[in-house]
Amino acid sequence: MQPDRSGVATLQQTVPVIGILGGGQLGRMTAMAALRMGLQVRFLVPKPADAAKGLGEVIVGDWNDPEVLRRFAEGCTVVTVESEWAPADVLEPVLPEGTALWPRARTVQIIRDKGQQKRMLAEAGLPLPAFACCATLEEAQAAAERFGYPVVLKRYRGSYDGYGNFTAHTPEALLAGWNQLAQEDGLLVEAWVPFVRELAVLVARSPGGEEVLYPVVYTRQQDHRCYLVQAPAAIDPAVADEARRVARAAVEAVDGVGITAVELFELTDGRLLINELAPRPHNTGHYTIEGCYTSQFENHVRAVLDWPLGSPELREPVAVMVNILGRRSSDRPNLRGLPEALRTPGVSVHLYGKTQVRPGRKMGHVTATGSDPEDVRRRAEAAADLIARYL
Amino acid sequence: MQPDRSGVATLQQTVPVIGILGGGQLGRMTAMAALRMGLQVRFLVPKPADAAKGLGEVIVGDWNDPEVLRRFAEGCTVVTVESEWAPADVLEPVLPEGTALWPRARTVQIIRDKGQQKRMLAEAGLPLPAFACCATLEEAQAAAERFGYPVVLKRYRGSYDGYGNFTAHTPEALLAGWNQLAQEDGLLVEAWVPFVRELAVLVARSPGGEEVLYPVVYTRQQDHRCYLVQAPAAIDPAVADEARRVARAAVEAVDGVGITAVELFELTDGRLLINELAPRPHNTGHYTIEGCYTSQFENHVRAVLDWPLGSPELREPVAVMVNILGRRSSDRPNLRGLPEALRTPGVSVHLYGKTQVRPGRKMGHVTATGSDPEDVRRRAEAAADLIARYL
Repeated sequence: MQPDRSGVATLQQTVPVIGILGGGQLGRMTAMAALRMGLQVRFLVPKPADAAKGLGEVIVGDWNDPEVLRRFAEGCTVVTVESEWAPADVLEPVLPEGTALWPRARTVQIIRDKGQQKRMLAEAGLPLPAFACCATLEEAQAAAERFGYPVVLKRYRGSYDGYGNFTAHTPEALLAGWNQLAQEDGLLVEAWVPFVRELAVLVARSPGGEEVLYPVVYTRQQDHRCYLVQAPAAIDPAVADEARRVARAAVEAVDGVGITAVELFELTDGRLLINELAPRPHNTGHYTIEGCYTSQFENHVRAVLDWPLGSPELREPVAVMVNILGRRSSDRPNLRGLPEALRTPGVSVHLYGKTQVRPGRKMGHVTATGSDPEDVRRRAEAAADLIARYL
Repeated sequence: MQPDRSGVATLQQTVPVIGILGGGQLGRMTAMAALRMGLQVRFLVPKPADAAKGLGEVIVGDWNDPEVLRRFAEGCTVVTVESEWAPADVLEPVLPEGTALWPRARTVQIIRDKGQQKRMLAEAGLPLPAFACCATLEEAQAAAERFGYPVVLKRYRGSYDGYGNFTAHTPEALLAGWNQLAQEDGLLVEAWVPFVRELAVLVARSPGGEEVLYPVVYTRQQDHRCYLVQAPAAIDPAVADEARRVARAAVEAVDGVGITAVELFELTDGRLLINELAPRPHNTGHYTIEGCYTSQFENHVRAVLDWPLGSPELREPVAVMVNILGRRSSDRPNLRGLPEALRTPGVSVHLYGKTQVRPGRKMGHVTATGSDPEDVRRRAEAAADLIARYL
């Protein structure tokens, strides 16, 4: 075990350098927040990344190679991750003197592995759907009998947005799902949860222990992808309080630093179960750029630098974010709908600079703010649709 | 005279490319607005520019060379200027087919030359301090006798932030000032105006004639430099209406496209006189990034692309911007004060990435928003001071 140097302060740099492992839209928007404050940004990406282009030094390299990671980290004040798949665990043992890494590799590893994540949250006494880590089909069948059908099969690693997941309504479907998805270490089997709503809470937490919580938001999925986020969620205040309590405890259980997102299921009786965590800025927090006094991206940067955190409060009563998802395959994004979308009053359009459009790919998002939730939602959806239809 | 091709629409680009002549903080913040919308940015600068670094392709070249300008403009959807000193007039005759230039060279030239600017505004019947374009010392002396002392001597070109200006209280001082400043074409002589307040109005105007006006703001100067901007200015509504009327007419008189800033003097009796115009985003509009639904930078980009303009309305009752000015000379900016400044509630810090600190140099700014003007001002000033004291 290498000594943990992730908290070592750096004094030799007068302008902090933020290293980001990854170069998608989350890294892009994190970089924009850092650049606005006059900081420097450097990306390490395994292959050329459009979204990071033009926002700092972009290094393309084999990021599973410790030497590549060490050289990248050299001169960074702090290195952070854009995704739970980023090799924080490879970097940590070779972290240069004077460079911090936040979140810790251990936090990233726990969250990356859905089995470990569930076990850790269960140990902390947090509410979760019933789950079992099943090494064999027989164990999965036994778990399904115990929970009752339907059950959800999930790969421990690499499952997201519906990929690597399978909902089995019958023993036959379970068999088919197992054969399709199971890896060496088997699969996670989870009781299917009859939720009424999905909620999310973002927590910004600094190594020094400072913590701020963003409003509880409602998130609407479409085809297993985040489609719309409304802040705040129109829910019972007691449910909102409980969501915040659970989110805070979950983030502390995995020792999250920076932004950690906590996704929750709200059940018919108002109970909450944790769906999953993400150790980084999150799609459910894009609305914070215009919606809150301090965006999730700025607070992520501030947290990983161990700087004071900013207010997560809403600037207006309501903010709604709608994703702009690709609807076809193209290497020439068509921005024809953008000018028309900008006619929509009170919306901000974010496009991520990706040159390859694919069905369902996150190409950008729109945020609207205001007072009347229906009106705000309508404006955000209308503007996003005007862009997506041509893209 | 070359044909005006500045309005030619371009269809060959799917992602618009914004060319910016200049690479200071105005170009930087314009680029950030463009990047957020997924557009591409390219800078042409006469010497390496820290503020533009990392925000797009930065081309360093002799921007008085038409061939350099033509090559730069090739492939841009539109080229715009960051400063009235940018060579729009050299570019316009060699503008590539399919590239627009906004504002027009003529607008930039009129505004660049204080004599032409005054004459143009006077012809449009707009209120100005008494002025005379004086080719000789004798003409200047005659003008000063006519206006009464003190008078202000100004170079036609290159005078800003107190440079190239001289206030003469006596005929002797006039002689000294003339000898110090006069150029081949003499000097502009202006009656000194006993103003109570300086105000500014930003106008966003598109080639298609769409126009939006930002709130009338109060601007406080210190050592001839913009120090603080408060939006909206706490003035009589009738004065605000008149400021907007004058600003709109002034921008139309010079055919401004994109953002044009109009600085005004408010006299003791409530009358307004135009101080000067700038054909570009302006220091008095930095507050719009957090303060308004659409920032001056985004509306500048939208206007030069002839896209619909966004709402210039304030998102909260009050916004105050305070500049962060260098207090010493250094090649290593010290950001030690930044984390502490971020403790100030409800402020956004912008630093421009400049590596050379000089006394009075604009290194960044802070914007605070809220309801109570005194409280908002105090927070903005406190945060800016915490940063500037170490920088």
